[in-house]
Amino acid sequence: MAIKYGVIGTGALGGFYGGMLARSGKEVHFLFRSDYEYVQQHGLRVDSVNGNFHLPKVSAYRQPLQMPACDVVLVCLKTTGNRHLHELIKPMLHPGSVVVLLQNGLGLEEELASHLPDVQIAGGLAFICSNKVGPGHIHHLDYGKLVIGSFNLTNPEVLKQVISDFQSAGVHAEFSPDLRMARWQKLVWNVPFNGMTVVLNTTTDRLMSNENTRELSRELMLEVIHGANCCGVPLKESLAQQMIDMTLKMKPYAPSMKLDFDFRRPMEIEYIYSKPIETARNAGFEMHKVAMLEKQLRFIQAHY
Amino acid sequence: MAIKYGVIGTGALGGFYGGMLARSGKEVHFLFRSDYEYVQQHGLRVDSVNGNFHLPKVSAYRQPLQMPACDVVLVCLKTTGNRHLHELIKPMLHPGSVVVLLQNGLGLEEELASHLPDVQIAGGLAFICSNKVGPGHIHHLDYGKLVIGSFNLTNPEVLKQVISDFQSAGVHAEFSPDLRMARWQKLVWNVPFNGMTVVLNTTTDRLMSNENTRELSRELMLEVIHGANCCGVPLKESLAQQMIDMTLKMKPYAPSMKLDFDFRRPMEIEYIYSKPIETARNAGFEMHKVAMLEKQLRFIQAHY
Repeated sequence: MAIKYGVIGTGALGGFYGGMLARSGKEVHFLFRSDYEYVQQHGLRVDSVNGNFHLPKVSAYRQPLQMPACDVVLVCLKTTGNRHLHELIKPMLHPGSVVVLLQNGLGLEEELASHLPDVQIAGGLAFICSNKVGPGHIHHLDYGKLVIGSFNLTNPEVLKQVISDFQSAGVHAEFSPDLRMARWQKLVWNVPFNGMTVVLNTTTDRLMSNENTRELSRELMLEVIHGANCCGVPLKESLAQQMIDMTLKMKPYAPSMKLDFDFRRPMEIEYIYSKPIETARNAGFEMHKVAMLEKQLRFIQAHY
Repeated sequence: MAIKYGVIGTGALGGFYGGMLARSGKEVHFLFRSDYEYVQQHGLRVDSVNGNFHLPKVSAYRQPLQMPACDVVLVCLKTTGNRHLHELIKPMLHPGSVVVLLQNGLGLEEELASHLPDVQIAGGLAFICSNKVGPGHIHHLDYGKLVIGSFNLTNPEVLKQVISDFQSAGVHAEFSPDLRMARWQKLVWNVPFNGMTVVLNTTTDRLMSNENTRELSRELMLEVIHGANCCGVPLKESLAQQMIDMTLKMKPYAPSMKLDFDFRRPMEIEYIYSKPIETARNAGFEMHKVAMLEKQLRFIQAHY
């Protein structure tokens, strides 16, 4: 049976992944805000390293209430609005709907489940360099892997079909048997590089080429790994060096939080910093340096 | 017997303290660099909250070799040139000379003694808001207390006369029986506020009015206090709250490191951060957050 997809937050992530699904012939309903009228007229454009494409006609909506009930709702919003996410998605759910939170950080599924205890929730992590460069216009620069795992699905098999749909659409998608571990693992990269590029107003390549910040990145990574370990998530210390090596090979990169900072948009401090700090603390581990970075970021955001 | 003073580094500190001594009739010889010709022609001007004054004729020199041997040499230079300090001061010393390092940080006297083992060394700390605003022109904004203590003096009594000279000159000067403790105590303030005003490009009042950075300041202070404790220096934890309360009452202030940053001058990272971190580490205590701040500062300085 074909899955009916809904995409909330049609920006850098939602525009790319939803656009890929739609291009491959899947039924995809997109929720837009400011871009709605532009997309109604001009469609959705994706400039991708893997080949550009243009969808002249997309199923676009301005309000969740106007959308049909969807089988799988891909949440591609920034987490900065997550406190109200449950109100936003409620109108597009039917009793068997699965919500997939394609967002960074920790505690996202738990929070949604506390508001919508009967809803089937999954989570996903996008390993992609992608930006929205204009209304209905996405620029996909590099990478693109999706990792998806169950939070509380009674039947996780549905994720296999979602992954299969992504793969047919040309997206490298993988099933994770341990969503919590996947989230912590991505934090090992996100915690040092999102925050440090903001606080030091720089890019990943400069942080890597200076011995002080390369070492500090490693220390922050190890703190996250030890935090994960104390929460029962068995990440290895060697992951830090792997991520350093990977980042050394990357092109100069400004993570999403740096772009938010540059454009004075709210930063995703809560789920990338505060929740992991709190989670590790509740497990008896204090991530001192991560907590220092969090406080610096909160100061910066308060003084936009 | 009257003390013959030498002042090296006639900027915000040396201009003020040396100027006060000279105004009160003491014999003071000043070493200048770029300001030499201006001061030869126009003298030294101090605009002070305690009353402005102008010394039309000062005993100014361009080279240490031209200076007479001095009984007390007040070193008021930035520590960023301290590796060569022993070469600079050697020509103005006689066998009984006392060198007083009026500089911030840790390990200053030890380093000088390693180069000049026979020299009598003392140290001092200036609690003052003062800037050089032009050639031979000092602006003294607030405070002004000097704390002076012995490092290796065979006869520390000479410091009593120095202090008496300062007091007659209108400077609030105190003798410290424990120079190492005085240095650590001043670090409790300098470590959070010098570094944080640079990294977050701000002033003390803003750090104090944001709950995140107020808390982080306290955490950094406590780390310095614990570092001192591990080195056998019995600072109390309550000192952190005292310094927070004092800083809350201060006018908006940019510490000297922030001014160095604003003008892209070398910052005093070595003696305010690296030496204390190393000293505490050698005593078995890791100042994690202070070390993180040090690395951020070193990155910033490398990218001037």
